[in-house]
Amino acid sequence: MQITGDILIGSRFVSPGDRPLQALNPATGEAMEPAFGFAGEDEIEQACALAWTAFHAYRATDRETRAGFLETMAENIMAIGDQLIERATAETALPRVRIESERARTVGQLMLFADVVRSGDALELRIDHALPERKPMPRPDLRVRTIPLGPVAVFGASNFPLAFSVAGGDTASALAAGCPVIVKGHPAHPGTGEIVARAVQKAVADCGLPEGVFSYLLGAVETGSTLVADPRIKAVGFTGSRGGGLAVVGIAAARPEPIPVYAEMSSTNPVYLLPAALALRAEQMGRDFVGSLTLGAGQFCTNPGLLFGLAGPDFDTFLASAGAALKQWEPPAMLTPGICKAFEAGVEALSQHNKVETVARGRVGNGVNQATAALFATDAESFLADEALGREVFGSSSLAIRCDSAETIYRLSEALEGQLTATIHVEPRDADMARRLVPVLERKAGRIIVNGWPTGVEVSHAMVHGGPFPATSDSRTTSVGSLAIRRFLRPICYQNVPSDLLPAELRDDGDPSVPRLVDGKREL
Amino acid sequence: MQITGDILIGSRFVSPGDRPLQALNPATGEAMEPAFGFAGEDEIEQACALAWTAFHAYRATDRETRAGFLETMAENIMAIGDQLIERATAETALPRVRIESERARTVGQLMLFADVVRSGDALELRIDHALPERKPMPRPDLRVRTIPLGPVAVFGASNFPLAFSVAGGDTASALAAGCPVIVKGHPAHPGTGEIVARAVQKAVADCGLPEGVFSYLLGAVETGSTLVADPRIKAVGFTGSRGGGLAVVGIAAARPEPIPVYAEMSSTNPVYLLPAALALRAEQMGRDFVGSLTLGAGQFCTNPGLLFGLAGPDFDTFLASAGAALKQWEPPAMLTPGICKAFEAGVEALSQHNKVETVARGRVGNGVNQATAALFATDAESFLADEALGREVFGSSSLAIRCDSAETIYRLSEALEGQLTATIHVEPRDADMARRLVPVLERKAGRIIVNGWPTGVEVSHAMVHGGPFPATSDSRTTSVGSLAIRRFLRPICYQNVPSDLLPAELRDDGDPSVPRLVDGKREL
Repeated sequence: MQITGDILIGSRFVSPGDRPLQALNPATGEAMEPAFGFAGEDEIEQACALAWTAFHAYRATDRETRAGFLETMAENIMAIGDQLIERATAETALPRVRIESERARTVGQLMLFADVVRSGDALELRIDHALPERKPMPRPDLRVRTIPLGPVAVFGASNFPLAFSVAGGDTASALAAGCPVIVKGHPAHPGTGEIVARAVQKAVADCGLPEGVFSYLLGAVETGSTLVADPRIKAVGFTGSRGGGLAVVGIAAARPEPIPVYAEMSSTNPVYLLPAALALRAEQMGRDFVGSLTLGAGQFCTNPGLLFGLAGPDFDTFLASAGAALKQWEPPAMLTPGICKAFEAGVEALSQHNKVETVARGRVGNGVNQATAALFATDAESFLADEALGREVFGSSSLAIRCDSAETIYRLSEALEGQLTATIHVEPRDADMARRLVPVLERKAGRIIVNGWPTGVEVSHAMVHGGPFPATSDSRTTSVGSLAIRRFLRPICYQNVPSDLLPAELRDDGDPSVPRLVDGKREL
Repeated sequence: MQITGDILIGSRFVSPGDRPLQALNPATGEAMEPAFGFAGEDEIEQACALAWTAFHAYRATDRETRAGFLETMAENIMAIGDQLIERATAETALPRVRIESERARTVGQLMLFADVVRSGDALELRIDHALPERKPMPRPDLRVRTIPLGPVAVFGASNFPLAFSVAGGDTASALAAGCPVIVKGHPAHPGTGEIVARAVQKAVADCGLPEGVFSYLLGAVETGSTLVADPRIKAVGFTGSRGGGLAVVGIAAARPEPIPVYAEMSSTNPVYLLPAALALRAEQMGRDFVGSLTLGAGQFCTNPGLLFGLAGPDFDTFLASAGAALKQWEPPAMLTPGICKAFEAGVEALSQHNKVETVARGRVGNGVNQATAALFATDAESFLADEALGREVFGSSSLAIRCDSAETIYRLSEALEGQLTATIHVEPRDADMARRLVPVLERKAGRIIVNGWPTGVEVSHAMVHGGPFPATSDSRTTSVGSLAIRRFLRPICYQNVPSDLLPAELRDDGDPSVPRLVDGKREL
């Protein structure tokens, strides 16, 4: 598949005259061919117009058609073969095995949503039959299903060139819901973006769907702003920085018709090392922690950025073990020079902080864009006194907080902002403390992990990748797993609507395999 | 039960020194005893502090306790007896039979949510079992349930002194979800509000729940603003004007931690009279329409404010029939002098509009606060040219739009803002037009009604009382019916959490009567 640097407006390849972007190989610092064009206002307008037109036909497709489309997307992505792996590896400096597993995850995600669509589960059918004899007033026949919100704008993330990008979770769940998607690709991997966009575009054509079901744009910040402000866009999926996410939220809220934004933004993913666990396995935990901290050069939204434990020899053993492992760690290149610089600035600020001690640094790389990992420590009062210490440093940097008592740990937990994850390491003797901590962490996080590490997000039915602000802009949702489809649906009620005007699934002779709540009782 | 004019902070009655409010009997224009005090910043602070403390214990109550509490609320409201009916009738000028049915609805709503709580349905349990042998990585054990967001601020509505007020749908669904509630009572019915608040407060005590589960405040606009801005408030339920709702949305979005607002604001509830239906039963529809238009003096969010039909003799027959019925209508007093004045201003503007014809006016009342009903007509181009014609006039006023073709009707429908309801009157010969219109209305409304009228909202499982902006601030939700509980819940995932740290329902030996999705398959 040739990478041309074009943008994709429905079925058309558009070659903007201006081509301001070249992909960078962060491991070599070299620019890669070709140059990429940015979408202008005309192209955004065309993509939105096509998406709006496509919406009506696309949302009316039957479940089998839509599931088949998602499966065709998966097949077409696999069919690209090694070119996708090579380009994504070159554009991100992520190792081949990671990109391969990310492709598997992306394809698995599409297949999961195909299953969700086929099951009809997300339609959330409800029927309350008429009660014509009821006094004082008869009850009408009432039937509810969900319908898609409309075209969705998806912002690709820098750190997952496949799974949170062009055909990632936001796109898969929006398409599964029946929403056309316009992707604003991330400039850190434009070639990867284009290849995947072409595979999606081909799936649209393979399945005979209206071309506006999918478009792919590259552009500057204003491209995203214009897209979010367009009245035909009805929801937004975003993964990125807190500043970027809040800007999108602001634009969406200021529209004449405000729309929901699902922005995943910022999380420090606190890890709690309870005393008995520390006493039993501090050394092993130290090594495992470094594995999680340095995975993908720390460029995960679930990277463990904060550690809490009781000050004392066991915590020191943990830190010594972690420090020893970290010192051995060879840094790969980070995703972009900008991310690397921001990481270094964050680490530098911590290094210079007069209440922060540097426990260990990783090896210094001898290539470009390589950032030396860092483990810091501080005490509870210093942590509480300066909220900058609780902020995310995107990359392999973590801050351990030595606490003088269990009460201090609870107090610090209460002071945390919202998180994607919170992790506790416990042994049976920690049960009292864990029972006190879990309810606090439930209020702070979208996912609670015991005796594990926060990196690694399963794509399944019982996953929540979300959490209270500022982890996300909408704690009621998840961006990963089958529940993610709900973000793009709303319920609608049909009152006394005759069968021939009802959607097929809500008719009395509708597909009995689709679960329904009938007069308050679950069928299936 | 004595009405003291106090506000209720948890279990305490607080007597603010200043008592700026007296209830008004809108039918007589006379002030009623006693005078009511407003909450100051101290009282708001205390209510929020109590709610926050109560939240932890309240959300940990078992399902039976919480269901029993909702039922006790219902019993205590019934136990007030006739005093409640008399006070509410006097404060609203709504007829006794209406207030009695509203009480039945309010109590039924509490009982419905008791059932929802008992069923455990809203927990939305999901379990994906561990797959320790999976390659390349094992799958952890993942379990999801919903948890409540936190204390909720509820703004009572003027037009439903019981069902959308102190113990109305927002309060019932928030309490069912496990959220403490602080009600900002509506000043149009402060005595009714206090009586119901005392019944709820007694239920909190009867059930041995922490006092902060419920507080009741009266106050000026700033009281509501301060409440919404308080960091311990985690969601807002609001029913009222577009201006008021948008103000609350703005305050909530500007908080350091933004929170969801469920504001039901504005709807003109278009009614479509298709040709065959008009040909068959124009006269009867005219009379029935006036019944819906004048119900409760038109003071319903679902009042039919717009009528669309093909210009011609059948539409004229409908308008003549409606006009004749309307001319006979004796206006009761409206809820408040302010609502009456706003209605008169809205009707006056339509009367003076040079593209609007007055079809009929109702009788002129001979008492205070009585507003003469109005039916207007215009043509499609005039309607499209002036968006003021599409705005809600709260009360018994409706505008008929004569369209020259079916295409014009579709075009006008596309131009509508979001609505709570859309209604179509059809006969079998209208099927083609209805099939074209329904998909448009699905995008515009939360509920589609065939051959009925929009007033009257059923409280059940398959109800949606919501819709796209500006009907509500969040089209993904409903404020009526059992789905309303979802507004106050968010999902949380437990990864490899041992049984003793899991919530009871998620344990392997959890209550088997609670529905779960296990490894993607529905159990129950």
